[in-house]
Amino acid sequence: MSSILDRWWFRAFAAVALFFLCQLGFIISKVQNLDEEKMTLLAEIQTLERKRDGLLMDIANKERDIVRLDRREQQLEVLVRDRLSLVNAGRKNAPMIYFVTPTSFRPAQKADLTRLSYALSHVPNLHWIVIEDASTASDSVARILKRSQLPHTHLCVKTPANMKMKHSDPSWYLPRGVPQRNAALAWIRTQLSRAKTGAVYFGDDDNTYDLRLFDEIRSIDAVGIWPVGIVGGLVAEKPLLAENGTVVGFNAVWKPERPFPIDMAAFAVNLTLVTANREASFSYDVPRGYQESHFLTGLGLSRADLEPKAMNCTRVYVWHTRTEKSKLSKADWTRIISQDRSVFEEVEAHGLGL
Amino acid sequence: MSSILDRWWFRAFAAVALFFLCQLGFIISKVQNLDEEKMTLLAEIQTLERKRDGLLMDIANKERDIVRLDRREQQLEVLVRDRLSLVNAGRKNAPMIYFVTPTSFRPAQKADLTRLSYALSHVPNLHWIVIEDASTASDSVARILKRSQLPHTHLCVKTPANMKMKHSDPSWYLPRGVPQRNAALAWIRTQLSRAKTGAVYFGDDDNTYDLRLFDEIRSIDAVGIWPVGIVGGLVAEKPLLAENGTVVGFNAVWKPERPFPIDMAAFAVNLTLVTANREASFSYDVPRGYQESHFLTGLGLSRADLEPKAMNCTRVYVWHTRTEKSKLSKADWTRIISQDRSVFEEVEAHGLGL
Repeated sequence: MSSILDRWWFRAFAAVALFFLCQLGFIISKVQNLDEEKMTLLAEIQTLERKRDGLLMDIANKERDIVRLDRREQQLEVLVRDRLSLVNAGRKNAPMIYFVTPTSFRPAQKADLTRLSYALSHVPNLHWIVIEDASTASDSVARILKRSQLPHTHLCVKTPANMKMKHSDPSWYLPRGVPQRNAALAWIRTQLSRAKTGAVYFGDDDNTYDLRLFDEIRSIDAVGIWPVGIVGGLVAEKPLLAENGTVVGFNAVWKPERPFPIDMAAFAVNLTLVTANREASFSYDVPRGYQESHFLTGLGLSRADLEPKAMNCTRVYVWHTRTEKSKLSKADWTRIISQDRSVFEEVEAHGLGL
Repeated sequence: MSSILDRWWFRAFAAVALFFLCQLGFIISKVQNLDEEKMTLLAEIQTLERKRDGLLMDIANKERDIVRLDRREQQLEVLVRDRLSLVNAGRKNAPMIYFVTPTSFRPAQKADLTRLSYALSHVPNLHWIVIEDASTASDSVARILKRSQLPHTHLCVKTPANMKMKHSDPSWYLPRGVPQRNAALAWIRTQLSRAKTGAVYFGDDDNTYDLRLFDEIRSIDAVGIWPVGIVGGLVAEKPLLAENGTVVGFNAVWKPERPFPIDMAAFAVNLTLVTANREASFSYDVPRGYQESHFLTGLGLSRADLEPKAMNCTRVYVWHTRTEKSKLSKADWTRIISQDRSVFEEVEAHGLGL
């Protein structure tokens, strides 16, 4: 056997075979590696493809979101464009204003409440308390309140017959709105006894309010005061201020000796004063023109507490406008005093709010 | 040579070598394939990775979009919440209403224009044309117009001295607003001569408008008519309709023989009628109470053209309210008639709009 190992051709053959075997082994291992690499790469591709699918789904979702948001934005833009806010945004946390409006039936009541509602509905965080001088709340006023889209409270309390003015009486003859404003105070004390912020303002239904008034109302601590246009025979009724900005008097010409010779529209008070001083109210048992003074002193306030607003009382943001008494025939006045819907045509009843 | 080919070991050697060579060739080609495959897969992975990066960037962009849209939506929500629209949305393409308001200086002018602006600013697609009875347009009125955020035009034309009423004259003594309304008509004819749609309405500054009136105005073809509350000594002045809904008369008690015995607030006309009939106007040369008739006949209209609106004239959407003449001293009236800002305190001038 050893002889054959020594043969040159056998050695050559063995060497070649060994060489090829090594090559083969190397190549096989390389192929195995490559196969493994291929598997890894394929797995990687699968992962990436899954990821891509996920991302595409993500994008589809986001695109749906964007379409939805775009549509919502368009809707809101239309809403806003249709109704561009006349007041600044961002008053979510501004204190509530409780706007107390006593109202009684007359030919222009519906008209006056309608235009007042259009002013108030520009004001954020305003709660409108309307108290009808009636034994039942009317549908017409309720619909005006509803259309205003304001938070509101609709109350009614009838003025005692002996305290009710006739249509021919002069407007100063008897105090108006006494039981109505008291009903609003009672509602506030019941419903808002735990409220920590808020302002109460008595806003008649035929006054004219500049929207800037409501920023002044919101800024008061205890009691704010400001000028009122065209009232008490004056172009502007207002407090007189000292150099340091404190109230030292009033320009009222009628009964200037009153503790607060001011109009109902000239002040607003902090809600907590109303809930803390449960006896403060309006009353028939005070002299003519003393309603404001009676209420404010009932809250424990004195002239020194007055906070001048409206740029140190140099601006008029509320006018004591009065709607002219309607010129109607005696027969029409008789019908109107009856407040009987059946004596009116449909269109008349609609215009009167009956 | 042939001898060596016949040797068995040579044949075996050649066969083994051939076998290995074939194997080698096969394996090399397979490795080449695998290498190519690997390159392809790597390229694929690179493509996928690039794609993934693109998608991730896409997602980042979309997320930014969503954040932006979300923020915008929140802002708009606040705007809308603060100012919930009192009218329906989606009136982008509704015809424009040209609301023509002649106005003259008086103690309550600023108050009346202010509250009117709060009503009108609820109305989409309304262009407010205010014409002052003055030789120069006042800053006060301009500011009210600006605050209203309405499209507006501010004109002024002075009423001739002999046609100007004194503050003590009864309101019916002379026609009011004649040159002012004509100035508005001239502006419309110059600026809107090519307009194909729109309505013209004459809305005085102390009337009260229900927002539903504006839907009626928008719906007219040639000339619309509706009831007006508290005017002409009536609870509601209105046309009388036949069974089929055409106008057959009016309930006016004063001068019912007029072609159109109606108030200025009772009708609106198509803008194209105004631009096509350039002679139609208001005039001092017509009998008292004939302004409306003179203008409407000038547009070539007759009673048969009237389109009854407001649910067949059974609803009152506008009231002829009048703001009471302010009760002021003679000295104050003298100052007011002077319209001289320097004779007023700052707060008085602000309240009067001087």
